[in-house]
Amino acid sequence: MQSIINGKFIDYYELTMAQGYYLSGRYKEQATFDYFFRKNPFGGGYTVFAGLSDFLEALTKFTFSDEDCSYLSQTGLDDKFLKYLKSFSFKGIIHSVKEGEIVFPQEPVMRVEGNVLETQLIETLLLNILNFQSLIATKASRIKQVAGDRALLDFGLRRAQGLGGLSASKASVIGGFNGTSNVQSAYDFNLNATGTMAHSWIQTYTKEEGAFRDFARFFPDNCILLIDTYDTLKSGIKNAILIAKELEKEGRQLKGIRLDSGDLAYLSKKCREILNQNNLAYVKIFTSNQLDEYTIKSLLEQGAPIDGFGVGTNLVTGRDDAALDGVYKLSIFKHKPQIKTSDNIEKQTLPGKKKIIRYFDENDQFYADAIALDEEENPEMIIHPYHKEKTCNLKGYSSENLLQKVYGQGKKMTDNYSVEQIANYLKNRLLQLPNEHKRFKNPHIYKVGISPKLLDLRTELIQQIQQNFK
Amino acid sequence: MQSIINGKFIDYYELTMAQGYYLSGRYKEQATFDYFFRKNPFGGGYTVFAGLSDFLEALTKFTFSDEDCSYLSQTGLDDKFLKYLKSFSFKGIIHSVKEGEIVFPQEPVMRVEGNVLETQLIETLLLNILNFQSLIATKASRIKQVAGDRALLDFGLRRAQGLGGLSASKASVIGGFNGTSNVQSAYDFNLNATGTMAHSWIQTYTKEEGAFRDFARFFPDNCILLIDTYDTLKSGIKNAILIAKELEKEGRQLKGIRLDSGDLAYLSKKCREILNQNNLAYVKIFTSNQLDEYTIKSLLEQGAPIDGFGVGTNLVTGRDDAALDGVYKLSIFKHKPQIKTSDNIEKQTLPGKKKIIRYFDENDQFYADAIALDEEENPEMIIHPYHKEKTCNLKGYSSENLLQKVYGQGKKMTDNYSVEQIANYLKNRLLQLPNEHKRFKNPHIYKVGISPKLLDLRTELIQQIQQNFK
Repeated sequence: MQSIINGKFIDYYELTMAQGYYLSGRYKEQATFDYFFRKNPFGGGYTVFAGLSDFLEALTKFTFSDEDCSYLSQTGLDDKFLKYLKSFSFKGIIHSVKEGEIVFPQEPVMRVEGNVLETQLIETLLLNILNFQSLIATKASRIKQVAGDRALLDFGLRRAQGLGGLSASKASVIGGFNGTSNVQSAYDFNLNATGTMAHSWIQTYTKEEGAFRDFARFFPDNCILLIDTYDTLKSGIKNAILIAKELEKEGRQLKGIRLDSGDLAYLSKKCREILNQNNLAYVKIFTSNQLDEYTIKSLLEQGAPIDGFGVGTNLVTGRDDAALDGVYKLSIFKHKPQIKTSDNIEKQTLPGKKKIIRYFDENDQFYADAIALDEEENPEMIIHPYHKEKTCNLKGYSSENLLQKVYGQGKKMTDNYSVEQIANYLKNRLLQLPNEHKRFKNPHIYKVGISPKLLDLRTELIQQIQQNFK
Repeated sequence: MQSIINGKFIDYYELTMAQGYYLSGRYKEQATFDYFFRKNPFGGGYTVFAGLSDFLEALTKFTFSDEDCSYLSQTGLDDKFLKYLKSFSFKGIIHSVKEGEIVFPQEPVMRVEGNVLETQLIETLLLNILNFQSLIATKASRIKQVAGDRALLDFGLRRAQGLGGLSASKASVIGGFNGTSNVQSAYDFNLNATGTMAHSWIQTYTKEEGAFRDFARFFPDNCILLIDTYDTLKSGIKNAILIAKELEKEGRQLKGIRLDSGDLAYLSKKCREILNQNNLAYVKIFTSNQLDEYTIKSLLEQGAPIDGFGVGTNLVTGRDDAALDGVYKLSIFKHKPQIKTSDNIEKQTLPGKKKIIRYFDENDQFYADAIALDEEENPEMIIHPYHKEKTCNLKGYSSENLLQKVYGQGKKMTDNYSVEQIANYLKNRLLQLPNEHKRFKNPHIYKVGISPKLLDLRTELIQQIQQNFK
C-alpha cells in the first residue's frame, strides 16, 4: 500500500529549507523534532496513536530517484543540492509510543533525532500518516465503545477520501472493528474481507424472493439478505423467512438480514419479532445507513435488537472532525533546546529532549501523564502546561515510560506487530482508562503535566527571547 | 498516482455479487447504472464534478492478477469464477458530464452501460474517485469565490487523509487554487509546486535576522519570510524590513511576508502600514492558519490587506462535510427500466436511460436542468422529482445536453485535458451560474426537474411494485 511513497511525498518548503541547510553548510547539525497534537479529535477525551508501522515502512522508501531530481531541478532547486538528494536516506533515530497506545494533547508521542536536513525532510510524510491513522483509529474506538461485542464492519471505501481509504480500513480494525469491505486493505493488512449484496442484486431479479434464493444457493454459509429494496415489512422480511425455511430443509441456517433505510430501531424490533414468531431467533439483524457512535448509542438505548453494524462514511472520514491537527516542531538544535513562542499562547512549544511517563493508581488505572526532560528522574509532581497554579502530586504512583526506540541505523527496530496485535494492545489499554475520559463530548480532561525542570527550561528560554526584543 | 489501483480496490460485496452473476449464468445480461448524489456538500448550492480523468485511467488498471485471484480464493470465492476474473477488464460504455462541470443533486452525471458483472464490479472505484475529487473541487471553488484574484495555495498534505492528499491537491487546482505544497501531485498533474520556510528554519539560527538573510541569499527571487516565530510586530516585521532593504541594494525585491498565527486581520493591517511607511508597498502579505471560506470572507470584509492565502486542513479534507454522498444505482436491467423504492422516499431512484439537459436564459445564465429519457425530445417543462405540483416551463430557452461518451471499446474516448484546462472550464461555467446559487449557506436552490415522460415511467414502476405486495 505504501508502495507509491517516495521522496516526492513532501511539502515543497521542506525541500527549500533542506537546500538552504545544504548550501549554507549547516546540514549536518544535529536536530530533534517532536510530533504532538493540541487537542483530541471529536471533542473526546483521548486519542489512539496509530500509523507507526506504515510510517516506518514508508520511511525506508523515502528517497529521490534521478527522475525525481530532474523534476525538482525544473522547479528551480539547485543542482548541487539535488546531487546530494539523490543519495539521501533517513539515517536518524526515532522514539515513539507503541502503536495502539492511548495518548493525550501536548505529549511528544514521537521524537525524531538526526541531522537537521533529514529530520526536516520527513515532516510531511510523518504528519500525513500519523495524523490520519490516529484520527480514524480514535473514531473507530469510540464506535466500538458503544457497540460492545456486536459485530462492527467498515463499509467506507466508496466515500473515503480517495486512496486514503486504504489506511482508514486498517485504522478502523485497530480501533476495534471486526472486518472491512475493502479488499485491498484486507489483503495488505490481513484483515477480514466481508460483504454480501447490494440493492442492485435484488433489482436484477423479477422477484425479491428469487434474488434471495439464488444468493442463498451460491453462499449458503454466508447469507445475509438485504431486505429493504422494495419494502422491508411488506416484502423483504417475508421473503427472507421463506428462504430461511428453505435453508433449514437443507440443514443450513440463514445468517442474517440487513436493514439499510428507514428507522432502524423500529424496523429492527419489528423484524426481530417476526423472525422470532417464525422460530428464527438465530437469524441475526445487521444494519447500515449513515451510522456513527451517536446513532448507534441511541439505537441501542432504545432497545433496538441489532447484532451488527456496517459503518461507512462517518467512520473512514472521521466526518465530524476530519483531521487530527498534529504538528512536528523543533525542540533541539545543535544540542541546545529550542522553543517557538508565537502569537498564540497555545502554540508555544516544549523545548529539549523529553520523555512521557504514565502514572497508574492502585487499581492499575491511568492516573496522569508527565512530560519531563529525558535526563531527569521521573518527577513526583507535575504542573499544568499553561496554568502554573495547577499542579498534581504523583508521589507513590507506579509509572511507565511510554517512548521507546523504534528506528535507527536506517531500519525499523520494533517487532512487526499484526493489526490484530495492535488492536488487542489498545483493547487492554482502554480497560485502564477511567470511563469519565471516554465520554463522547465534554469528557473529564485527563491530567497531562510538565515537570518542574521542564517548566524552568521553558521559562528561561521565553525570557531569553523576550530580552532579544528590548 | 493511480498506479496502485487494481481489481482489489473494491468492496467485497461487488465480488460476491459478481460471482453470483457468473455462477447463475446471468453475467452477460446488459445493465445500466447511474452515478448521482442527493445533496450538495457544505450546505451549498452547487457541486463541481471532478475526478473523471483519474477514474478513466484507473479503469484501465482495474484487473485481477494471478496473485489477486489466489488471495480471493482464500477468502472463499469460487475457483471457476476466479478463473473468469483473471481475464476481466471493463469493456462497457460510459457517458459523463465534463470534468469541471457544475452539477446538482439527483442528476445522473455519469451513466455506465455494459454487462451486469462489469458494471457492478467498478462501483467502488468509481464512487471513491468521483465522490472525493468532486467534494474537494467544490470546497476549493467556494474558497476561490471569496478570494477573487488573490493567490490561493494548497498547504494540506500533512493533514490530508493519508494518500487521499494526492488527489486533493489536484482537485483544489480544478476548483481555482494557484498551486500546492504537494510535490507528488505537482509532478503528477503538472501543478505549481510552492513553498518557502517553516518556523523550524528560523529557530535553527541564533537570530531571526540571520535566518531571513540566509534564506534571501539562497532564494533571492522567491523569498517569503515567515515572521511570527517569536513576535510578529516586535521582531518579525522589523527583521523582514531589514532584509527587504538589503535586497533592494542588490536590485532585488522581497516577495512577501507570511503570517501564521495571531489575529490575521489586525496583524495584516499593522504589517501593511509598517511596510508602506518603509516604502515597501510592493512586499506582499500572505497568511495561513486554519483558513476556510468563512474566515477568508470575514478577513476581507474587515479590510485585511492580504494578498494570498495558504489553505490546508479545511480544504483538503472538506473538513466541515468530509464526504460527498454520491451513489451508483441500477436503472436498467435486461433492457427494462429499474427502480429502487426503499423506505426513505428520497432514496427512490430514477429508472431508464436518461440524459441531462441544461437550459440557459437570455443572458446565457443557467436557468434550470432537466433529467429526461434519452430517447425523448428535450422537454419544454419539468416537474420537481418529489413534489409533482411544482413545475417549470422551459419553452423558448436554449439548451445543451451535458452527457457525452467518455469511454468505450476498452479505452478513454475524451481528449486529455490538463488540470489547467479543466479549471478554466469551471471558471467560465461559474460565470454562468447566477450568484444566488453561490451563497455559502441556504443558497437559492437551482431548479432540477424530471420530464413528464420520466415521471410517468417512475409512477408506473412504483405501481407495479406495490401491486406485488398485495
